[in-house]
Amino acid sequence: MTVLTYSLTEVAQQTRQAAIHLAVASPQAKNQALEAVAQALEASSPDILAANLEDCQRAQASGLAPALYARLKLDAAKLEGAIAGVRSVAALPDPVGTVQLHRQLDTGLVLKRVSCPLGVLGVIFEARPDAVVQIAALAIKSGNGVLLKGGQEALQSCQALVKAIHKGLSQTDISANVVALLTSREETLALLNLDQEVNLIIPRGSNEFVRFVQENTRIPVLGHAEGICHLYVDQAADVAQAVEIAVDSKVQYPAACNAVETILVHAAIAPQFLPALIPALQAHQVEVRGDTATQTLVSVKPATEADWSTEYSDLIVAIKVVESLEAAISHINQYGSGHTDAIATTNVQTAELFMNQVDAAGVFHNCSTRFADGFRYGLGAEVGISTQRLPPRGPVGLEGLVTYKYQLQGQGHIVASYSGLKARTFTHQNL
Amino acid sequence: MTVLTYSLTEVAQQTRQAAIHLAVASPQAKNQALEAVAQALEASSPDILAANLEDCQRAQASGLAPALYARLKLDAAKLEGAIAGVRSVAALPDPVGTVQLHRQLDTGLVLKRVSCPLGVLGVIFEARPDAVVQIAALAIKSGNGVLLKGGQEALQSCQALVKAIHKGLSQTDISANVVALLTSREETLALLNLDQEVNLIIPRGSNEFVRFVQENTRIPVLGHAEGICHLYVDQAADVAQAVEIAVDSKVQYPAACNAVETILVHAAIAPQFLPALIPALQAHQVEVRGDTATQTLVSVKPATEADWSTEYSDLIVAIKVVESLEAAISHINQYGSGHTDAIATTNVQTAELFMNQVDAAGVFHNCSTRFADGFRYGLGAEVGISTQRLPPRGPVGLEGLVTYKYQLQGQGHIVASYSGLKARTFTHQNL
Repeated sequence: MTVLTYSLTEVAQQTRQAAIHLAVASPQAKNQALEAVAQALEASSPDILAANLEDCQRAQASGLAPALYARLKLDAAKLEGAIAGVRSVAALPDPVGTVQLHRQLDTGLVLKRVSCPLGVLGVIFEARPDAVVQIAALAIKSGNGVLLKGGQEALQSCQALVKAIHKGLSQTDISANVVALLTSREETLALLNLDQEVNLIIPRGSNEFVRFVQENTRIPVLGHAEGICHLYVDQAADVAQAVEIAVDSKVQYPAACNAVETILVHAAIAPQFLPALIPALQAHQVEVRGDTATQTLVSVKPATEADWSTEYSDLIVAIKVVESLEAAISHINQYGSGHTDAIATTNVQTAELFMNQVDAAGVFHNCSTRFADGFRYGLGAEVGISTQRLPPRGPVGLEGLVTYKYQLQGQGHIVASYSGLKARTFTHQNL
Repeated sequence: MTVLTYSLTEVAQQTRQAAIHLAVASPQAKNQALEAVAQALEASSPDILAANLEDCQRAQASGLAPALYARLKLDAAKLEGAIAGVRSVAALPDPVGTVQLHRQLDTGLVLKRVSCPLGVLGVIFEARPDAVVQIAALAIKSGNGVLLKGGQEALQSCQALVKAIHKGLSQTDISANVVALLTSREETLALLNLDQEVNLIIPRGSNEFVRFVQENTRIPVLGHAEGICHLYVDQAADVAQAVEIAVDSKVQYPAACNAVETILVHAAIAPQFLPALIPALQAHQVEVRGDTATQTLVSVKPATEADWSTEYSDLIVAIKVVESLEAAISHINQYGSGHTDAIATTNVQTAELFMNQVDAAGVFHNCSTRFADGFRYGLGAEVGISTQRLPPRGPVGLEGLVTYKYQLQGQGHIVASYSGLKARTFTHQNL
């Protein structure tokens, strides 16, 4: 790793320079590079696994938390999965060069809006070394350079992975400089300040970590700090179906950001719904907390104000009885994180109002919040899920890693011709 | 104006509440509201002009700079123009409710991506009171609430305009609370801190002002601090055509952000091109500054390093001789602001390389940089021009004021069905 002998800014500029050429590489050249990377990773597997073993031994000695240790550990199967991921990214449609708008402004004056790479991505992740492989593949496919900063505990693994990626790229037309690994802790903060060199930050890690990143950079951040998702069970809900949706939304993978945290229940259906729901949740060892109205109907722990703002990421759910659709929407817009919120109802008008007025990236009707996911949406790959309001919002595929530019092709056209006495008029005809 | 008796956060929350209902208003309801606003502005014209006269008198007494005074002054013709603008915004296609993606994920499980308003806009502008009218119309059309903060010098005018807008809205189904005017200077900074209530900041004013806003908020900003645009005259340029493009790019409206500031000339064509260009620019009273190589060919003032980073917004242009296309691209990517850069060449391959490798919102071939404009692009209305890399980029129409949400419609679908032994598979069929 010669990287350490350069300053971070120099590394970033070198990555940006390499990215300028990657930006105009053909889809074939990028896919060949991805295949070369996959093969180099396969060839270097023993070194990578050995490096990971060192990281794991160091982590065990220093008493790393079990959850982090599980993410740090890279066995042969996980590595094979990551390599398969590189090939599946290669198989995706190329996101660069898509003509989004094609318009004649006047005879011989033609405007195109064409998708193009962002430039350089900064990706900061905790523990998980396989993130290196996935992110590098997505960056190359989308024509972007990438600065990778992994957790200190994964240092050996990340270095071995990037070494293999560089080896793969060195046999192709794509410069190995498009992927750079940052290795010192100080570089995380420094990276967040590189607004001139880095165009998008992607943080991968805990909510606290993502929030830290969001609060410490002016570079756009693709990610979400929280996933406080709701299910509202309307008075016109199908009780059995609503119970199934509630259970799936909570227990199918409680650590996921799209798992439900709060279930809102219309007062008119609460006496039927809650006695059906509680045993179904308890059968999956879910701890249920309820507001006062819920407690009068079923035997559950009390929920406090803090529960409405808590992402449990665990087998815990809070229940609140509401008097109306409006009260449910208002609760969600106040306490939700704008991630995904669902309604269970047989009333189409009610569902429509809910989906229009709830301010979230995903608004669902009669299905589990767990469907909020790039793969389930058919986006091919998921770069991240964004809870910001401006696009890209929700699960983001490769299109989150590209932007566009306007290309205007003339034949000596000047603006003066379109003003004054004999002014030409624009035709504005889509082609 | 009862606004002053509330705190800014309360005003913003009230605007957000009103915006939730505006978000689901029909296109007809929004257009009727815009017509009512136009009529109320017409009816209140005498009051508005009288208020503006007061502002102008105060401004003259305090010695406001002539350029600001010109923007502050609102005469009958300017007001009529602004009112006509409201009706033309009403005539635009509705940006809300567009289905951007429609996909069956599985039988009975249908995903839609639908455009929807952002929520609440914060618009901060200097002097120009007619901005109130234009921005309020764009906000209503796009279904957004708006907090308006004008310069202190335009206070009476802005209050009279917003009073009329409120009067108009009060006769419609749209709440007058969707448009709020902030009046104290302290509120500008406070507005920039309202990340929970405001979803997009649009600054209108000088470069310094826009930069101040960008550096003092975490809310996304739609705007650009600088427009340092380039024209590169390639060795294969048509000299006469390149001269015309250069002159138009500089003199057609030198104060515009899309006017050219630096002309780069390939060394091989400089001896023919420069002697043709200089008199053509001088005929329009343009001050020409050149690097050493330029000075050896034509008699011009010397350009210094600072010239390459300067937006003159005036009849001044800097010229630099470059040795190659690569040198031109590299100069532009270093000194440009990513706004609009053009190439003059008869070589199609050279043009393509330039348009691919120059990192700007607009990359033009054989036409004036002055075409970079929402109206000329046929976007209907121009909300602003953005030089950020992420979309929206370049001239931004109404679509810059909307985002999207994913609506998923199921029939009791749960994610557990798609895992395990008898896992269902997604169909992912576009509808």
